[in-house]
Amino acid sequence: MPQFLDYSDADFEARFTALLTAKREDSPDVDAVVADIIADVRARGDDAVIELTERFDRVALTPDTLRISPEEVDAAIAEVNTGDREALELAAARIRAYHARQMPEDAQWTDDVGATLGWRWTPVSAAGLYVPGGLASYPSSVLMNAIPAKVAGVGRLAITVPTPDGVLNPLVLLAAQIAGVDEIYRIGGAQAIAALAYGTETIAPVDKITGPGNAFVAAAKRRVFGKVGIDMIAGPSEILVIADGDNDPDWIALDLLSQAEHDESAQSLLITTDAGFGQAVAQAVEARLQTLERRAIAGASWRDFGAIITVPSLDVAAALSDRIAPEHLELCVDDPQALSAQITHAGAIFLGQWTPEAIGDYIGGPNHVLPTARSPRFSSGLSVMDFVKRTTLAQMTPDALRAIGPGAERLATSESLEAHGLSVTARLRKLNG
Amino acid sequence: MPQFLDYSDADFEARFTALLTAKREDSPDVDAVVADIIADVRARGDDAVIELTERFDRVALTPDTLRISPEEVDAAIAEVNTGDREALELAAARIRAYHARQMPEDAQWTDDVGATLGWRWTPVSAAGLYVPGGLASYPSSVLMNAIPAKVAGVGRLAITVPTPDGVLNPLVLLAAQIAGVDEIYRIGGAQAIAALAYGTETIAPVDKITGPGNAFVAAAKRRVFGKVGIDMIAGPSEILVIADGDNDPDWIALDLLSQAEHDESAQSLLITTDAGFGQAVAQAVEARLQTLERRAIAGASWRDFGAIITVPSLDVAAALSDRIAPEHLELCVDDPQALSAQITHAGAIFLGQWTPEAIGDYIGGPNHVLPTARSPRFSSGLSVMDFVKRTTLAQMTPDALRAIGPGAERLATSESLEAHGLSVTARLRKLNG
Repeated sequence: MPQFLDYSDADFEARFTALLTAKREDSPDVDAVVADIIADVRARGDDAVIELTERFDRVALTPDTLRISPEEVDAAIAEVNTGDREALELAAARIRAYHARQMPEDAQWTDDVGATLGWRWTPVSAAGLYVPGGLASYPSSVLMNAIPAKVAGVGRLAITVPTPDGVLNPLVLLAAQIAGVDEIYRIGGAQAIAALAYGTETIAPVDKITGPGNAFVAAAKRRVFGKVGIDMIAGPSEILVIADGDNDPDWIALDLLSQAEHDESAQSLLITTDAGFGQAVAQAVEARLQTLERRAIAGASWRDFGAIITVPSLDVAAALSDRIAPEHLELCVDDPQALSAQITHAGAIFLGQWTPEAIGDYIGGPNHVLPTARSPRFSSGLSVMDFVKRTTLAQMTPDALRAIGPGAERLATSESLEAHGLSVTARLRKLNG
Repeated sequence: MPQFLDYSDADFEARFTALLTAKREDSPDVDAVVADIIADVRARGDDAVIELTERFDRVALTPDTLRISPEEVDAAIAEVNTGDREALELAAARIRAYHARQMPEDAQWTDDVGATLGWRWTPVSAAGLYVPGGLASYPSSVLMNAIPAKVAGVGRLAITVPTPDGVLNPLVLLAAQIAGVDEIYRIGGAQAIAALAYGTETIAPVDKITGPGNAFVAAAKRRVFGKVGIDMIAGPSEILVIADGDNDPDWIALDLLSQAEHDESAQSLLITTDAGFGQAVAQAVEARLQTLERRAIAGASWRDFGAIITVPSLDVAAALSDRIAPEHLELCVDDPQALSAQITHAGAIFLGQWTPEAIGDYIGGPNHVLPTARSPRFSSGLSVMDFVKRTTLAQMTPDALRAIGPGAERLATSESLEAHGLSVTARLRKLNG
C-alpha cells in the first residue's frame, strides 16, 4: 500500500515535505573504478576497450569487430517482424515531425547605431549515443536520442551498445537504422564513454554524448564533461497524475504502474479531489499487481514511494504539482488545458484521460528523455537544442563605434582593464583623426 | 615572444596540435574543503555562513547584515560619477535589446491524427548570480548575467558578492540595480554557493546559479549541480584573431593583449595570411607591453600561450579556427561576413576591423559569458535560454489514440513493459467496446 495524505490533515505539510525529499536512489560510489577505466582507455585505446569488454561482457572482440558491420545489422534486422517494424517507423516519423519544429532560427539585424548584430546556430559535428544492454535496451530510447541529433544536422552519430554474452536486440539495430545512425559499436560501460570522448584507433572521438546508463556510465559521463558535452544525468522515473473523480480507476492505476514497473526507485503519485476515487485507484493497483509481469519491481516502487494525496481543489493540486516539479504530469480532469496553464514546473504534460503517459514514451512525438528529481524547475527534456550551439555575431561600423565606443572605454577603465579600453581608443583616434 | 608557426612547415601539425592541447590551467583540488563547507552551511545555515565569512573575508556579519539593504545600495551608488553611470545604462539597454530577441516561442498544433502537440516555455522561478569580489569584481559581468535572467522573467534574482575587508565596488551595486536584481548578499566562496543552493534562515534557496568564480566557487557549483541548475564552468579566456595584411598591427596587438591581460592562463592567437604582418603585430605587442598596467599578467600569457600562425589562405585559416573552436573570434579581413559563413565552432564572432573584441565585453549587446577550452564545439554562451525551461505537451483524442495507440502497445510489448501497454489497451478496449 502506498501512503495516503490529505491536504486538510494537520501533519500534511510535514508528510508532503518528506515525500519531496525522500532519497530514492543510493548510487554506489564507483568513481574511482571509473577514473581508472577512463585512464586505461586514454592510454591504450582499442586494447583497453577490448580487454574491458571481455571482462565485463564476456565477449571477445578485435579492432575489426568492435564495430557492428552494416551486413550484421542487415542480417539482424531481417529477423524483425512487420508489426514491430511498422510501429518503430510510425514512432520515428512522429518523433521526427515533432522535433523538426524545434530547429531554432538564425537572426541578424542592424540596430539604431548601425551595428549589425545577431546569432547563428550550427550543429554539433559528431555525437555519441549510449544505449544500455540487456533488459533496459530500449529501441524507443534509440529513436528519442538519435532523431533529435539527426534533425539538428549532426554529421556523424555513433552508438555504443554492450552485448553481454553476445546478445543483441535486433530492434535496437533497426531503430538505429531508421534514425539514420552512422556507426554502431558493441561496447558498453565506462569504457564506451571513454572511447566516445577521447577516441581510440578505431573509434573517432565525438563532441557530445547522450543516453541513459547505469552508475558506471553516469560517473563516466560526469568525468568526461567539459572534454565533451553531455546530456543530463537522469534519476529514477516519476509520474504525477492529477485526476478528478470522473475517471476509470483502472486506467489511472495502470498509468501509475507504468512508471512503477521501470524501477524499484521510481515514484508514482496521484493527487485527486475525490478521496473515494483515490481509494478506488489504490484497489485497482492492488488488483493489477496480482498479475503484472514486473509486479515485484512495480510493487516495491508503489509500496515504498507511491502516494495518494487528497486535495480540496484543482488549484491546490496545481500548487502542489509545482512543488513536486514532476518529470511526467498527467492531467485527467475536465478541462486539462486550463489546468495545464496553472503549471510552471513539469518535464512533460499529458492532457486528458485519452493521453496515457505511455503514449509519450513511444509514439506521441515529444521526447521521452526528461528531467527528473525536481529538476524541471530549471531544465528541459532532450531536444534538437541539445545538438546545436549558438555563435553570436557583432559587426560595428565606424559610426557605430563612434556612438558606443566611448562607453566601452569608460567601463574598461572602471574595471582596470587597460588594453580593453586601448583597443577601442586606438580605433576612435583614427576615426576622429 | 610568442610561438611562430607556419602552415607550410614540416612540423606544423605537431606544433599546432600541441598548441590545442596545452594545459593552461592547474586547478587546485579543493573539492574536499568545499564538501565540508557545503555540509556546514546545510547543517548550520546562517551561523555557518557568518563564521566562514569572518574567516575568509574578515568581515563580521549578523543575520540582519548578510543582505545589503536597499539604503546601503542607494548610498553606495550615489558615489558613482555620471559618466560611469551613463556607460552602464547604455550597456544595459543594448544588452537588454539583444537578449529580448532570444525569448523562445511557445507552440501548439494539431497533427494528422488529431493529436494536439506542442510545448511551453516558463522562466526559472528564482536564480542566484555569483559575483567575485576584489579585482575581478566586474560590473559588466553583473549586467551580462542578470539581464538575461530578468528578460527571461525570473521572478527572484539574488546576487552574492564577497566584500573582503568590507570593500565593495559601488559600480557592481549600480549594475545590479540597473539590471533589476532583487537581493544582494555580501558573502562569497563555496559558502555563498551552498547558501544559494540549499538556503539558510535568511537566504531563500534558488533554482539556478550562474556567474564566474575561483576554484572554490567552481567546485561548489559542480557539487550543487542537480540540486540546482548551473551555467558552464568557464576556463581561462581566449581570443583568435584572423587578419589579412591590411590591418593596423597596433590595433590587432591591443586586441590580443585585451585577452592576455585577463589572466596568465589566457590565450591569444593570431592567424594571418601575411607573415610580415604577423611580425609587425609581434613587435607592436612588445611595444605595448612596455607600458601596459597589467604587463606582468599579459606578458606571461602572451609568452607562454600566445602564437602567431601564418597560413596560405583564409580557407586554411577558417579550417584551423574550427579546430581551435575559440571563445572569441575576430575576423579582420576584407569580407568578414563571407569568412564568418565558413566558421562552425566559435562562441562569438566579431566582424571587421571596427569591431574590437572589447566592444563585445561591454556594450555590443551579445553576452560576454562564453564557452572556453574548445567547448564551442558543443555549447553556447549565456542567454535567455539558460533561465527558461520547456514543458512538452501532448493531448490525444479518442481518434488519435485509435490511430497510434496500437503502435505504442506493440513497442511496449517488445520492451517487456506490460503496464505501459495495458494503459493503452484499457482505453482502446473502451473505445472499441
